[in-house]
Amino acid sequence: MDEQRPLPTLDARFDSGNGQLVDVEPGPPARLRVLIEPDRMPASSEPLGDSAPPGEQGPAPFRQWFHFRVHGEAGVPVEIVIENASLASYAGGWTDYRAVVSEDEQHWYRVDTDYVEGRLRIRHRSPTGTFACAYFAPYPLSRHAGLLARAQGHPDVQRIALGRTVDGRVLDALRVGAQDATRLPLWIIARQHPGESMAEWFVEGLLDRLLDEADPVARRLRAHHQLWIVPNMNPDGTLRGHLRTNAAGINLNRAWQEPDPVTSPEVHAVREAMLRTGVSLSLDVHGDEALPWVFTAGCEGAPGYGGEWQAAQERFRERLRVASPDYQTRHGYPVPPPGRANPVIATNWIGGHFQCPAFTLEMPFKDNAGAPDPVHGWSPERAARLGAATLGPLLAHLEDAAGAATA
Amino acid sequence: MDEQRPLPTLDARFDSGNGQLVDVEPGPPARLRVLIEPDRMPASSEPLGDSAPPGEQGPAPFRQWFHFRVHGEAGVPVEIVIENASLASYAGGWTDYRAVVSEDEQHWYRVDTDYVEGRLRIRHRSPTGTFACAYFAPYPLSRHAGLLARAQGHPDVQRIALGRTVDGRVLDALRVGAQDATRLPLWIIARQHPGESMAEWFVEGLLDRLLDEADPVARRLRAHHQLWIVPNMNPDGTLRGHLRTNAAGINLNRAWQEPDPVTSPEVHAVREAMLRTGVSLSLDVHGDEALPWVFTAGCEGAPGYGGEWQAAQERFRERLRVASPDYQTRHGYPVPPPGRANPVIATNWIGGHFQCPAFTLEMPFKDNAGAPDPVHGWSPERAARLGAATLGPLLAHLEDAAGAATA
Amino acid sequence: MDEQRPLPTLDARFDSGNGQLVDVEPGPPARLRVLIEPDRMPASSEPLGDSAPPGEQGPAPFRQWFHFRVHGEAGVPVEIVIENASLASYAGGWTDYRAVVSEDEQHWYRVDTDYVEGRLRIRHRSPTGTFACAYFAPYPLSRHAGLLARAQGHPDVQRIALGRTVDGRVLDALRVGAQDATRLPLWIIARQHPGESMAEWFVEGLLDRLLDEADPVARRLRAHHQLWIVPNMNPDGTLRGHLRTNAAGINLNRAWQEPDPVTSPEVHAVREAMLRTGVSLSLDVHGDEALPWVFTAGCEGAPGYGGEWQAAQERFRERLRVASPDYQTRHGYPVPPPGRANPVIATNWIGGHFQCPAFTLEMPFKDNAGAPDPVHGWSPERAARLGAATLGPLLAHLEDAAGAATA
Amino acid sequence: MDEQRPLPTLDARFDSGNGQLVDVEPGPPARLRVLIEPDRMPASSEPLGDSAPPGEQGPAPFRQWFHFRVHGEAGVPVEIVIENASLASYAGGWTDYRAVVSEDEQHWYRVDTDYVEGRLRIRHRSPTGTFACAYFAPYPLSRHAGLLARAQGHPDVQRIALGRTVDGRVLDALRVGAQDATRLPLWIIARQHPGESMAEWFVEGLLDRLLDEADPVARRLRAHHQLWIVPNMNPDGTLRGHLRTNAAGINLNRAWQEPDPVTSPEVHAVREAMLRTGVSLSLDVHGDEALPWVFTAGCEGAPGYGGEWQAAQERFRERLRVASPDYQTRHGYPVPPPGRANPVIATNWIGGHFQCPAFTLEMPFKDNAGAPDPVHGWSPERAARLGAATLGPLLAHLEDAAGAATA
Repeated sequence: MDEQRPLPTLDARFDSGNGQLVDVEPGPPARLRVLIEPDRMPASSEPLGDSAPPGEQGPAPFRQWFHFRVHGEAGVPVEIVIENASLASYAGGWTDYRAVVSEDEQHWYRVDTDYVEGRLRIRHRSPTGTFACAYFAPYPLSRHAGLLARAQGHPDVQRIALGRTVDGRVLDALRVGAQDATRLPLWIIARQHPGESMAEWFVEGLLDRLLDEADPVARRLRAHHQLWIVPNMNPDGTLRGHLRTNAAGINLNRAWQEPDPVTSPEVHAVREAMLRTGVSLSLDVHGDEALPWVFTAGCEGAPGYGGEWQAAQERFRERLRVASPDYQTRHGYPVPPPGRANPVIATNWIGGHFQCPAFTLEMPFKDNAGAPDPVHGWSPERAARLGAATLGPLLAHLEDAAGAATA
Repeated sequence: MDEQRPLPTLDARFDSGNGQLVDVEPGPPARLRVLIEPDRMPASSEPLGDSAPPGEQGPAPFRQWFHFRVHGEAGVPVEIVIENASLASYAGGWTDYRAVVSEDEQHWYRVDTDYVEGRLRIRHRSPTGTFACAYFAPYPLSRHAGLLARAQGHPDVQRIALGRTVDGRVLDALRVGAQDATRLPLWIIARQHPGESMAEWFVEGLLDRLLDEADPVARRLRAHHQLWIVPNMNPDGTLRGHLRTNAAGINLNRAWQEPDPVTSPEVHAVREAMLRTGVSLSLDVHGDEALPWVFTAGCEGAPGYGGEWQAAQERFRERLRVASPDYQTRHGYPVPPPGRANPVIATNWIGGHFQCPAFTLEMPFKDNAGAPDPVHGWSPERAARLGAATLGPLLAHLEDAAGAATA
Repeated sequence: MDEQRPLPTLDARFDSGNGQLVDVEPGPPARLRVLIEPDRMPASSEPLGDSAPPGEQGPAPFRQWFHFRVHGEAGVPVEIVIENASLASYAGGWTDYRAVVSEDEQHWYRVDTDYVEGRLRIRHRSPTGTFACAYFAPYPLSRHAGLLARAQGHPDVQRIALGRTVDGRVLDALRVGAQDATRLPLWIIARQHPGESMAEWFVEGLLDRLLDEADPVARRLRAHHQLWIVPNMNPDGTLRGHLRTNAAGINLNRAWQEPDPVTSPEVHAVREAMLRTGVSLSLDVHGDEALPWVFTAGCEGAPGYGGEWQAAQERFRERLRVASPDYQTRHGYPVPPPGRANPVIATNWIGGHFQCPAFTLEMPFKDNAGAPDPVHGWSPERAARLGAATLGPLLAHLEDAAGAATA
Repeated sequence: MDEQRPLPTLDARFDSGNGQLVDVEPGPPARLRVLIEPDRMPASSEPLGDSAPPGEQGPAPFRQWFHFRVHGEAGVPVEIVIENASLASYAGGWTDYRAVVSEDEQHWYRVDTDYVEGRLRIRHRSPTGTFACAYFAPYPLSRHAGLLARAQGHPDVQRIALGRTVDGRVLDALRVGAQDATRLPLWIIARQHPGESMAEWFVEGLLDRLLDEADPVARRLRAHHQLWIVPNMNPDGTLRGHLRTNAAGINLNRAWQEPDPVTSPEVHAVREAMLRTGVSLSLDVHGDEALPWVFTAGCEGAPGYGGEWQAAQERFRERLRVASPDYQTRHGYPVPPPGRANPVIATNWIGGHFQCPAFTLEMPFKDNAGAPDPVHGWSPERAARLGAATLGPLLAHLEDAAGAATA
């Protein structure tokens, strides 16, 4: 009703928010110039961290996750320009990328986005004027709390505090199925990188099926096996709106060889628990900024890889391909030469230590190019279905392994 | 699984969070010493504001709202001690008060709380270890976004941007029913004080009924009248975890006489809209820290109060008492002497200017002493039912007034 | 896919079904000629009952309820002609009447209907081809079972078998609130006439609110009073697809003076229970074939009517008018002269015996002419809202009566 | 409240009801003596059909399905004795069988049942007194109507009237995915035998997944293939409470070689449609009275069986075994000798005619002995999960077949 059109604005001061408004130009479309705030960097590099001007040289901080609310006018287009997109950790990720928005913060969909001259431009004509915009549909800590509380109500679930994060939060695991020596242990960890929110949507789908009373795969897993699930390994980074690091600035997925209990307590705690339980197979769930595919990286480069270890890994992949056509094995990361896997990465350390199949499961921030959805791209719902679909291959692996153990 | 018990911790860095952990003593019960952060104060008083040590003399900043997550161990009791509770704006509010907690951040319930020697002590033995704790069940901005988006879908609803907040957020109103000169306008505003979250739960209940297709009161209101509803007049303060003020440190409910468009743009925008539409009756929805009752303060002290104005006000109250036994008229604020109402308060300004019934509707932070619920105290659900119950008295007022106008 | 178009057909052999197909003419629109089957008549009149040709003279059997499924082709209009509509008990009810249909048997809506030369013609172009069609949205015995089972789970509810029907079914009452001498008893009975299905939709709405944990009216009713509710007094007639009578052919609402335990066991059982508990106010819930209004018939013609009895009755009506604008007091049945009320009718017998307010509450089969809904007419949802809205006036009556008792 | 305890009673006059009360003895436990009514038999055998005294010699009618409501007292045990259980079509099915009951007609569970001296005795102490009891959780025609209407709303679904039943009902198919010559057609038919209600629960689970927007198997099936689904081939028998036959008394699964359009129009219509579309694979979904396993009977005995036909059939079974551990291949019907399959059975006719994999999929009335659930036995939820799980193997078959076609 105002005579003079006010400029749109933006805020990001909330759970998993990231985005700093530096300028607004009137329009329409009004243009909001935004900077992605960098992840916290390790103490030693701090002078070049948060306080450094964008573009500063030095050990580059991580930045790519964004999540903010825009306050504009109903039906009037706005353009959001992420000015420091070229400084993002994976600037290649912006090609063919489309941002997600939501008016009600429940249903997220893709909007017109391009990456030109180092800037990411997002255009949206919101029916309400106010909308949230993010790199991917967020999975905030409040939903994380609900997920854990709901799972904990199931009689076959034990919620276990593995340790504490840098900020002192509890690092929660859910153990599904009794812990006894006859049951082979399987580990699923997610969100070492907090900006890869699809990893927790994946876990939600997996858990919902795993706790279903009527599903025969789930019933068998609960009755005969033990699954350890860490829905979010990096709650500190989640709250802070980080892409990659924890509250001490550490990329947890480079800390598995000798995790420092002070700066990487999250890895330290999970690793200690794994050493106590053993591991028969592990999944480490991630999102990939660049590749428009669902794929896995295994532990091919781990020392000693081969034989039944390799065969079990291949069988798991083939079964997952059958269970979910969203998964494929043609596109992915290059395989390291034998024995040359980077041992600081979770999958390599776990696979190498326990001589077991271990996978980094990657989902796209963009879309699955093999089955595109022009409205949603890759989405929370699709991540959840993929999580549910892994249960069959996980059960098959455990039954193979149990059979081999008793043979 | 850790040998040595880690100390519980606490965070509040999220939408509507407030609480700073200053110390933890081991237990059990471990004791978390917490400070409530003060609301932002006006620029002129800032030296005594955020940075002032607790207890500093001067124009005291507001503080009372708290909302944080505690991370402890399942089944192990913790004690939260709010050290600066005596500096709260309404320390009298702590008597007989019990804090609310939630494990899943959906269902909130009361826990053991006492106020001794200036400290508020909250004790909880959480079945999950991790829980949210707050002064009242929060209504965060993400839920606010969903409320607006859902209402906007209804064909009888128009979402209108009245203006901008200090932080640049859109100040949204919902107009229900067509805006034409034959329809008497009714205004419902809520959450001038952002920490009074029950005010938005009230609006949610009112709106859900108002948009119901089968309810005859709602159908008649939509078909024949116009209702202007501002679900949250202070989104900036909501996000910041304030009790009372907006982002400029202003208590909006003391700014109605001459609202400064720079420091009180929220009041300025609503007041301008009211001047355009006129007002036939207004409700300003609040929570009261001290009184365990639902009650209204009217505009008894406004100049010229009496006659049909007074009669209409009395009829509304009597009808509301009948519609909702949670509302009563015995307990409440003292009535100011004739002509001595404070004109900076919304209700007095609106009532005085439009010579119409106007009410500050107060709900308890504690419980309704006339119908106590030992598990939930006053609750989101009860606030919502009260909001729904006001529709009948609102309709009756409009029909009286329309009848008088055509008589 | 068939070359030759098959004729549409019809079935009614299910819970509450009624409708016999006698002929189909090809179309389009194909024309289905249907007879409404008469209610069972009392044994003495049986020769003129079921087996009598339509139109036969004698004590006319009841017939008006219909409920059947039509099986036709998607998108192809059909015309249903109720051939014996002129023999319906209330042929005047067909004027301005529109039948309801549903493709999914959950959402019911009105379709084009007219009454010409003694035939009721219903036209529908169903998007699916197969649809249910009825006199009003049915409330079958399977839903009745769910209603009772759900209510029974509430700690304040006792399910009580009052007796048996002619067919041997249990006649269930729900008592809400403890039964003790200090609590005034209130009775709500519904569906003496089984074809008046809106009566049980009304009870469902009333019960849902009455068992709500947060509603202050409901909490007070449960805490301080006792409500006896009979959701369906005529389950035998419901299953059989009757309009009016029970399995012995008795119109229960003409059997209250001296109910025969063999042919009217339903009335006998309820009456005996009322004699044990006493009655402070009663509602007997019905639908009216002809009048497009919600109204009540009281016990004005009962001997001794007047004074506080009359005043309480007037207050209830006025309060219900305020609580639900769907209810009105202008249109209704003529009031009998003093002392001349028909004592065989529930309301008159109850009011007369207990000298208390008693009402026959009538809802339309058509629509509420004061607030028409062109899509749904009077509907299950509107009946439910009306049921919920009666709780306030019921509470007010009980509080008046309790106050008078202790004064 | 009655002094003298009334006897419990029973009714079955509703959609899919079956059970005739012949006697009640007082108790407790009161004993209700019940007869299962036989299915309608073909006209030629009618003299020995419905009107024949139980136990009469001659071509025995089918009987085994029961579904009735018992009306007794809350908390008082009753015993239901099915007197003619020994005349059931598969008396061997009573061994280790437990009947299902439900108080709210939504959640069904198993109760104490034994088969002694030719009588089936069911004991239940119902918390409400009134309960439904059935051979398996019913799937009545009203739910069938909802299933079709919901599916029809999906843009990839076409609802097609294949023809009419004996009673004139529409025989509905859902075609999912466009019908074009490049898409291989797959057929799923269910409930030739109407008492095998688990077959339609299976279809509901299959359809819910098939219409899911996020499921990659479903998306691929909808985008590239065509599925013809007949959720209920025998609606007439369903309504009548038959175990096996249609309204003309025909066992549809013995009518596939030369279906009489008058007495087996259901088979005739489906067969004609199959001849038009072709068939790449078919599933005919059933329940088995005796075997406590999920299994398939293929078309091993069809003339010419072997080669790729056989290989495709084996692959499907192996894939289903992996997708759902409730399915197994060890237990099942004996395999007929080569060329000796009974050609009147759907699977044999379809497989033989189209030289394609065809399966009779059988689920237990009892439980899956390989994964028993003591509370529910085999259940609607488990049937639905199995239906959903078949989609993967169906897709794999179509992709194999499409690959072979283009190779």
